[in-house]
Amino acid sequence: MRMSEGVEWGLHCCVTLAWLEGEGPVSTARLAASFALPAAYLNKRLQALVRAGILTSTPGARGGFQLARAPERITLMDVVAAIEGTEDAFRCQEIRRQGAGAEHPVREFGRPCGISTAMRKAELAWRRELAAQTIADVAAGTPASAVEQTRRWFATERTHT
Amino acid sequence: MRMSEGVEWGLHCCVTLAWLEGEGPVSTARLAASFALPAAYLNKRLQALVRAGILTSTPGARGGFQLARAPERITLMDVVAAIEGTEDAFRCQEIRRQGAGAEHPVREFGRPCGISTAMRKAELAWRRELAAQTIADVAAGTPASAVEQTRRWFATERTHT
Repeated sequence: MRMSEGVEWGLHCCVTLAWLEGEGPVSTARLAASFALPAAYLNKRLQALVRAGILTSTPGARGGFQLARAPERITLMDVVAAIEGTEDAFRCQEIRRQGAGAEHPVREFGRPCGISTAMRKAELAWRRELAAQTIADVAAGTPASAVEQTRRWFATERTHT
Repeated sequence: MRMSEGVEWGLHCCVTLAWLEGEGPVSTARLAASFALPAAYLNKRLQALVRAGILTSTPGARGGFQLARAPERITLMDVVAAIEGTEDAFRCQEIRRQGAGAEHPVREFGRPCGISTAMRKAELAWRRELAAQTIADVAAGTPASAVEQTRRWFATERTHT
């Protein structure tokens, strides 16, 4: 089981946009260059974040992306769900009702499957942890020198275009 | 992100084998029939559980699979790891070192990436929850009537072959 690389891309872009708050929209091209990522693929991820209400998109030559709300109000869960979807990783197919189970009385399946319940419990622990951490938390954990360097890189890049 | 259906198959087979403890080995064909699963695919999952030391396999006409240890000592994490592998779902590609990051001094990357750390924290919460639940817990949560019916199904099936 592997999460799409788009999750890492999306999270890093959100953190970068948190550092660049107040500097205006940042284009896909600049975000892609800052991580050496393929711009077209990155754009699809950024559009998914727009659809999820995490980013806003401004069209035009000086357009680009900005956080749609304060980084304190964007959790890692929001970003993961926007990129990966909201379905559980474990999808119960109710195989207990097949084969031998097909001969059991239906009332026996009134209670949810114990395996499904147990797997859901773990999934919820994962979701709870992701929901407890925000883009602001991650942004705040980065050394100030790295943030400063990133901001400078984006400022310089802008004057060149 | 989706877990392989083999996880559900493997978990159900382990719970079934816990119910049938003391009845001798159970063949792939019988386990597959009991859930109406394709026997060849199921066998691959069962072999993975053997390699992980969760099941033992006995060859021969009356051979099959048994739990390798008490169901109290087999966690859901053991089964998920045996089928899905042990790697984290989120695989950090260190994109922070690319693009603009390539110009940063190496010492800046001495600390692990905050995003990677945050994602790992959630993954550990998920693993902890899976490791806290055993096959015995799930088996014990099933209504006695369903267990009895399953045991009867396997006993009958055996006399037919």
